[in-house]
Amino acid sequence: MRTPFLMLAACCVAQFAMAQHDDSLTIRRFSNEVLDHSTAYENLRVLTKTIGGRLAGSPQMVKAEKWGEAALKAAGADKVYTQECKVPHWVRGEKEQARIISNRRDFVPPLNILALGNSVGTGPKGVTAPVLEIHSFEELEQKKDQVKGKIVFYNYPFNKKFVKTFYSYGDAVRFRGAGPSRASKYGAVAVIVRSMSHSTDNHPHTGSTRYNDSFPKIAAVAIGLQDADRLSKRIANDPSAKVFLRTTCQMLPDTIGHNVIGELKGSEFPDEYITVGGHLDSWDVCEGAHDDGAGCVQSIEILRAFKAAGIRPKRTLRVVLFANEENGVRGGAKYAELAKANNEKHLFALESDAGGFTPRGFIMEMKPEQRARIKSWLPLFLPYGLYDFDEPGGGVDITPLHNQLGTPMAELSPDSQRYFDYHHAVSDTFEAVNKRELELGAVGMGALVYLVDKYGL
Amino acid sequence: MRTPFLMLAACCVAQFAMAQHDDSLTIRRFSNEVLDHSTAYENLRVLTKTIGGRLAGSPQMVKAEKWGEAALKAAGADKVYTQECKVPHWVRGEKEQARIISNRRDFVPPLNILALGNSVGTGPKGVTAPVLEIHSFEELEQKKDQVKGKIVFYNYPFNKKFVKTFYSYGDAVRFRGAGPSRASKYGAVAVIVRSMSHSTDNHPHTGSTRYNDSFPKIAAVAIGLQDADRLSKRIANDPSAKVFLRTTCQMLPDTIGHNVIGELKGSEFPDEYITVGGHLDSWDVCEGAHDDGAGCVQSIEILRAFKAAGIRPKRTLRVVLFANEENGVRGGAKYAELAKANNEKHLFALESDAGGFTPRGFIMEMKPEQRARIKSWLPLFLPYGLYDFDEPGGGVDITPLHNQLGTPMAELSPDSQRYFDYHHAVSDTFEAVNKRELELGAVGMGALVYLVDKYGL
Repeated sequence: MRTPFLMLAACCVAQFAMAQHDDSLTIRRFSNEVLDHSTAYENLRVLTKTIGGRLAGSPQMVKAEKWGEAALKAAGADKVYTQECKVPHWVRGEKEQARIISNRRDFVPPLNILALGNSVGTGPKGVTAPVLEIHSFEELEQKKDQVKGKIVFYNYPFNKKFVKTFYSYGDAVRFRGAGPSRASKYGAVAVIVRSMSHSTDNHPHTGSTRYNDSFPKIAAVAIGLQDADRLSKRIANDPSAKVFLRTTCQMLPDTIGHNVIGELKGSEFPDEYITVGGHLDSWDVCEGAHDDGAGCVQSIEILRAFKAAGIRPKRTLRVVLFANEENGVRGGAKYAELAKANNEKHLFALESDAGGFTPRGFIMEMKPEQRARIKSWLPLFLPYGLYDFDEPGGGVDITPLHNQLGTPMAELSPDSQRYFDYHHAVSDTFEAVNKRELELGAVGMGALVYLVDKYGL
Repeated sequence: MRTPFLMLAACCVAQFAMAQHDDSLTIRRFSNEVLDHSTAYENLRVLTKTIGGRLAGSPQMVKAEKWGEAALKAAGADKVYTQECKVPHWVRGEKEQARIISNRRDFVPPLNILALGNSVGTGPKGVTAPVLEIHSFEELEQKKDQVKGKIVFYNYPFNKKFVKTFYSYGDAVRFRGAGPSRASKYGAVAVIVRSMSHSTDNHPHTGSTRYNDSFPKIAAVAIGLQDADRLSKRIANDPSAKVFLRTTCQMLPDTIGHNVIGELKGSEFPDEYITVGGHLDSWDVCEGAHDDGAGCVQSIEILRAFKAAGIRPKRTLRVVLFANEENGVRGGAKYAELAKANNEKHLFALESDAGGFTPRGFIMEMKPEQRARIKSWLPLFLPYGLYDFDEPGGGVDITPLHNQLGTPMAELSPDSQRYFDYHHAVSDTFEAVNKRELELGAVGMGALVYLVDKYGL
């Protein structure tokens, strides 16, 4: 009894080892193609330097969609098309103004701020009010009687102790999201939020806020870290200090945007899909290089390099450049809606939206046995520096697909140390992206797509 | 028989788990101290911005030594002292000149070059000669009859396919080291070497060359990548093209340098040493931020944060800022010489000299059982992103100690993608270092020192 079993086992092990050897050679071929001939960096340069910031509804977004179609065709997609969707149309208006007003009449430089996305303006005359500094929602509740007529200043610092910076972001971002309406509830006239960053510079970091319709909508801005510290000191030492704030942003009626899609047709199961994508929109104030030009050009690169390296997927590979992640996720919602309406079979979805830095692994949202299968491929990823497959999570744009169809999803998890230095700030430029780091992200993503396509999930 | 064994085993496992739990808490305390209160980044700013490039023998090196003593005292060292050593005294002289000379008389911008460290000058009149482009030493041998009177141009590209860039460096650096004398053997009048980098800019990257005394010493320079490509095209298309080269560098008589050392006295075995260090010197043309200001300030930070977090090592912790790594390794040699002469017991030596980037693990040179012991601590390192403990290697400055006393050694292995963008080039500045990446390197190093001190090797 034992010998045949052992022989079978030995046979299986040998087959597994041989398969892994074949896979490692294929992945190496793909990696060599990307590292030697990638067009991702040049694509990113064109997107960021010739188009720039591209918020939903902006003329730049229209240009970016055209660019995306052209880039997907140039990469060798069998089919390139778009999916129309309604998108919110928020405009920043004139350059924001903020300064400390004081009886002391000393010279005080202006405060470096940016209106939060989707926020209302102060009106053309601005608001001037005393400032109430708040460090937690509990403190806000305790001081609710002091809020009326004030500008509430959420000065909650990014926690430096987390090694993975997305935990610091998750910890702090509630003040940007819910802070304005929670302050408005008690009569605040505007809100200033300390930027979600531990950068050493003074750039404010914008991002969406979400109003609660039960309370008046009030103006809301992000402030740079150095100026947050300066403001905090000033109001502590100068009882006469007020802040003047002026923003003219507004939400216009919805307009039209598009997901831009390129396909590489599957050789065996053309009606089964693997989605790989990033989001094409970015905040208006930056080039959107890490967020998320990187994810777009990496996804396009996978298609290009698969073809160049002679890797023909069994399932259809869909590269999706999603519309409107930043202030609506309408592109991701539309993609899931159409997938469901068309009864499409989606094997797997992968996003890159955490920066174009050296990859370290994937966060994943899927059944335990699917995660275990992916983790069994670890030896194939280690030569490329990907080792971290344990954390939950998935991309914002593919979450609707995951929720609607149950599609297993993953997101590239790059080194996170620098991400929030640039995130939603003017410093998110092409120059902040390193060519090889960007390319290695595409290598890691492509390897995962190749293995999922070959072995299923 | 089995029950007692199982009980013993269970007991051991439980003890091991408890010890790991204690260690994980201690390491977390240390990490929190570094990420919240590190002085490493500010130390690096002072070293790079107020002192700058500091080659052995330069006035800046003397300032850097004073800075190092003060920084070690400020960090709380029990004892700060120096070790004197002889160091080479190479000076670059006037700004290097290089240009293409051609009968075509079109405008050709100058070539961006830097003399190689330890190289001789061309003399004040410079040399003008036709250029012979070479891609391998085999090709040089095949073309040895064409070498006489020429400038040999080693145009060997950095191999992009290696994921870890130090392999690309190891592959290419032989042309910088041995190239000049191998060309001189056949009558070359000077050498131009393609910079060891895959950067996207045009900065030349200097570094030491090593003459073979059997052949005449000829001038040798590094050239930026864009200009290397431009030169290659020009000589292929323009038979009249020559290059004019002028360098006035020279090697002066040896002078005096110092290793700068700070100690935290061991509580149980004060006569046993753990060495942690980086090298204090840098190339003259840059701020030496990644190479190796980072390693110096990380090593100092370990001492500071051990004290601040209440970690008193059992062995004496020696932080060593080594003299003259770049063009002589005389500081490392002196350190080993004195350790041997004084019959010191060295448990372990650790260096950081691969850039202040996010740590990924350690390269190590030690007995297999010592490596296995360190690898058994992997679960304690994973939360900080260190997973890679498999590769051989060790720091240049601690290699003499390893060779003379057999001391097990390791070097921090940070993310390597950006390192050769900056290495030995003007772009190696403070701004290229990220505060958190630098600090996480110190966290990883400190964790290793703590564990080696506690459990031995």
